[in-house]
Amino acid sequence: MAMASGSGCSASSTTCSRRPATNAYFPLLIPESFLHKEAQHVEGFAPEAAVVTHGGGKKLDEPLIIRPTSETIIYTMFAKWVQSYRDLPILMNQWANVVRWEMRTRLFLRTTEFLWQEGHTAHVTHDEAEEEARRMLGVYRDFMEGWIAMPVVTGQKTDSERFAGALRTYSCEAMMQDNKALQAGTSHNLGQNFSRAFDLKFQSESGSTEFAWNTSWGVSTRMVGGMVMTHGDDVGLRVPPLLAPIELVIVPIYRSDVERSLVLEAAERVRHSLCEWDRRESSRLRVHIDARDGMKPGAKYYEWELRGIPLRLEIGPRDLANNQGVLVRRDTREKRPVSLDVLGEDVSETLSRMQRDMLAVALERREANSVRERISYDRFRQFMDAEGGFVYSGWCGDPACEAQIEDDTKATIRCLPDEEFRSAEAPTTCLRCDRAATSEAMWAKSY
Amino acid sequence: MAMASGSGCSASSTTCSRRPATNAYFPLLIPESFLHKEAQHVEGFAPEAAVVTHGGGKKLDEPLIIRPTSETIIYTMFAKWVQSYRDLPILMNQWANVVRWEMRTRLFLRTTEFLWQEGHTAHVTHDEAEEEARRMLGVYRDFMEGWIAMPVVTGQKTDSERFAGALRTYSCEAMMQDNKALQAGTSHNLGQNFSRAFDLKFQSESGSTEFAWNTSWGVSTRMVGGMVMTHGDDVGLRVPPLLAPIELVIVPIYRSDVERSLVLEAAERVRHSLCEWDRRESSRLRVHIDARDGMKPGAKYYEWELRGIPLRLEIGPRDLANNQGVLVRRDTREKRPVSLDVLGEDVSETLSRMQRDMLAVALERREANSVRERISYDRFRQFMDAEGGFVYSGWCGDPACEAQIEDDTKATIRCLPDEEFRSAEAPTTCLRCDRAATSEAMWAKSY
Repeated sequence: MAMASGSGCSASSTTCSRRPATNAYFPLLIPESFLHKEAQHVEGFAPEAAVVTHGGGKKLDEPLIIRPTSETIIYTMFAKWVQSYRDLPILMNQWANVVRWEMRTRLFLRTTEFLWQEGHTAHVTHDEAEEEARRMLGVYRDFMEGWIAMPVVTGQKTDSERFAGALRTYSCEAMMQDNKALQAGTSHNLGQNFSRAFDLKFQSESGSTEFAWNTSWGVSTRMVGGMVMTHGDDVGLRVPPLLAPIELVIVPIYRSDVERSLVLEAAERVRHSLCEWDRRESSRLRVHIDARDGMKPGAKYYEWELRGIPLRLEIGPRDLANNQGVLVRRDTREKRPVSLDVLGEDVSETLSRMQRDMLAVALERREANSVRERISYDRFRQFMDAEGGFVYSGWCGDPACEAQIEDDTKATIRCLPDEEFRSAEAPTTCLRCDRAATSEAMWAKSY
Repeated sequence: MAMASGSGCSASSTTCSRRPATNAYFPLLIPESFLHKEAQHVEGFAPEAAVVTHGGGKKLDEPLIIRPTSETIIYTMFAKWVQSYRDLPILMNQWANVVRWEMRTRLFLRTTEFLWQEGHTAHVTHDEAEEEARRMLGVYRDFMEGWIAMPVVTGQKTDSERFAGALRTYSCEAMMQDNKALQAGTSHNLGQNFSRAFDLKFQSESGSTEFAWNTSWGVSTRMVGGMVMTHGDDVGLRVPPLLAPIELVIVPIYRSDVERSLVLEAAERVRHSLCEWDRRESSRLRVHIDARDGMKPGAKYYEWELRGIPLRLEIGPRDLANNQGVLVRRDTREKRPVSLDVLGEDVSETLSRMQRDMLAVALERREANSVRERISYDRFRQFMDAEGGFVYSGWCGDPACEAQIEDDTKATIRCLPDEEFRSAEAPTTCLRCDRAATSEAMWAKSY
C-alpha cells in the first residue's frame, strides 16, 4: 500500500541531529548478582525470575536468571564502553524474548515468555534522557494509532505503577472492547539509578566525573492482543490494512471446470494488473488467489473473515461477463461491484480509508465510554461495577487513597494523562477523599 | 543494489506447487521429559542442557530445559494439529535463540547461546521429506554463495556426525582462511524417529494410520563468523556488498570551513543523485556521508575499512574542480577517479563485480588448498599437520577407521560430498586401511 511504502535509498543524513538506535543483542542469561545491584529492580523482578541452576550437567557456582528485562546486563556493558562525554549518547535496541514467571497467564497479554524490543540509552544530562523517554512514547503512540489503528492515552504512571528502578514511567493506555485498559507500551526515564548501581560514569566536558542518565523503553507481543481486542468482532479478527499479511484475497466462484479455468484466468489477470499498478506506485500490495478446489466459496469467505484479511474480491462467471467483481470490506462488511479494469487505485484508496475508519471507530468507542464530567465516588463505584471505562478525575496524590480505590473497585490509575488528554477545566478535588487534587488521573480497570 | 531488489508485489502464486514455510514461534522452555522421548536426541543434547529448576520463587515440579533445538516441543504440537494426510505437509520456521552449554566457546562459531532459524516440516512420504531436506540444503548453499560469497561443499554426514535423532544429515562445509572447515548449515531428514516418539500420526488416503516423515534444518549466527573468516584481512572486515549495512561511504576532504561546506554540498548532491538513480532502478543503495568534524580523512578511511564497508568515495576540493571523486574498493583496495555526474550505474556495477569477485577469490583459495589426487596416509598426516585443507579420498565405511584417522590427525570426515564435488574418477581404496572404498569422503580439520 502507498501508506507503507518507503524509498529504497535510506541515506543516513548528515543534517539530522539524532542518530537512530543501533540494533544489538545481549545474552539471555543474567548472573543473579547483577539483578541485586539495583535495590528496587531486584525487588520488582526477583519474584518473577526463572532461574537456571544447572548447565552442562553441573550445578552452577552462581545461578543465572533468564532476562525479565535487560537493564542490568546492558548497563554492565555500557559501563565498560563509556569513558568520556564524547562516547554519549548511546542508543541501543534489541529484539528479544524475555521471561517473567506468571501465575495467571492470558494469551498475548500476560505470558511467562514474551517477545519484545527493548531500547536502552545513556545520556550526558537528565533533560536529554527525559526528552528521549518522551520521544519514544511518541513513537509508540504513532505506531499504535497509525498502524494498529488503536488509539491510546499517553501519560505518566504513579509511583505504585512505576517500573522497578525508574525515576518516571510513561505509558500508552488503550481501551479494549470490554472497556478495560491495556497498557500497550512503556518508556522510562531511569535517572541515575542504574548508572550508580552499575558504575556507568563518564568524564564531562569540564573534566568532572558524572553518572550517566539512562532511559529504557519497550513494546511487546502484547500489542498483538491489543489489535485482536480493539478490532475483533464475532466473525473473527479484523486486521488493519497496514498490518495485514495479505491485503486482498480473490475468491473465484464457479460450477464447472470450464467456468473454473475462465474465472481463475481472470483472477490471475486482476492480480497481475494490481501488481503492475503496485510496482509503479512503489507500493506493497499482497494479493492472494484462493484457488483451493473442492471448497465452497462460502467456506472460503468464512475462513478469510476469521483471519481478518481486509479485502475480498469475489469473481464469478456472471460478474466476468460485465468485467466486474464484488469487493467486500472486512471491517464494515460493505459489498460493492467494481470494474476489474482499473482496480489498483480503488483498492489502494479503500485500504487507506479502512485504516482511517478503523482508528476512528475505535476512538469513538473509547470516547463514548470515557467519563470526563465530575462524578461522585458512589457513581464511580457503580460505573466500575457495571460497564466500566476510562474516568478522568482529580487525585489528591496520596498512594493510600489510590490503594483504597483499587480495593473498592479494582480500578487503578492507568496514568496521569498528558495535557492533550486532560479535561478543559482541571479537577479541583480528589475522586474519593475530597481533598484538593494535585493532578488529574485517568482511572480504569485493566489487564 | 539491483541484485538485492525485489518487486513490492509478492503474490502467493496459485501455480507454484510448493507452499513457503510459515513463520511461527514456540516456547523457549521445554519440559525435561519431552527431551527424553527420543533416545538418541536426549543422548546428544542432555549433556549440553541449561536447566531451569526454579520459577516464581518456587522449585518446579519438573525441570525445564532451555531449548537446544526445538524438535521435541514442535512435534508435540504437530501431533495435536495433524489428523489426516490432508493436514500435510506442514512447513514451519522459527527465528529463535537456543542454548547449548559449551566448555570452550569461540566468538560467533561456538557460543553457549546463539541465534538461528530452525525449520520443521512433516510429510506424508519419506521421499517428500528427503526432497525437502535436500531442497533446503540448496537454499542454504545459494545464500552462502550468492550473499555471503562463501563457497561451500555440500554432502551427507557420516553416522558419527549425524544430528541426534536424524536418519540422514546434510551439511554445507566452507573453508576458512586457515584452511579449516566450518560447518555452516545443516538439513536433516529425521525419518519417522520423532513422529514415533511424539505420536505424530495421520490417516492416509487409503485409511491406514501412518507416522509422518519429518525434516528440520537450520543456519545460525555462525554464518557471521563464516563471513568474517572467509573475507577478513589484516585491515579488518570485508563485507560482501549484498550483506553490507551501508554500501558506499562518502568521505569529504577539506582544510578550511569554506572547503568543508563546498565539499559537503557536493557530497549531498552525489548522494541525492545516487538515491534518485536508485529509486528508478528499484534498488537499495545505502549511502552514508561521514561528516564528522575534527577527524582526519585517514582516520575515517581506517575506520570504514575496519568495518568492511564495500565502497568509499573520497571527495576533495581539487577533485571537485574536475567534478571528480576517487572511488576505492574495500576488497582489492583499488582506487580510481570517477565522474560525480553519472555515478549510479558505475557504483551498482562495481558492487555487483565485487560480489562476484569475492566469491571467486574464496573459491580459488579453497581449490588451491584442496587435494584431489590420491595420496598416501603418511602424506595425508603430514598435510594435516602442516598447511591443512580439504582432502578428497576413499573411505571404507568403517567408523573405527574414521575414528582412528581423527585420533592420528584431528581431521574428520566433513561430509560424503555430493556428486558435483566428487572426483572425476571414484577412489577405489580407503585413505587409511587400503580396504575397498564404499564412498568418497572429504576430510578436514574443523571448527
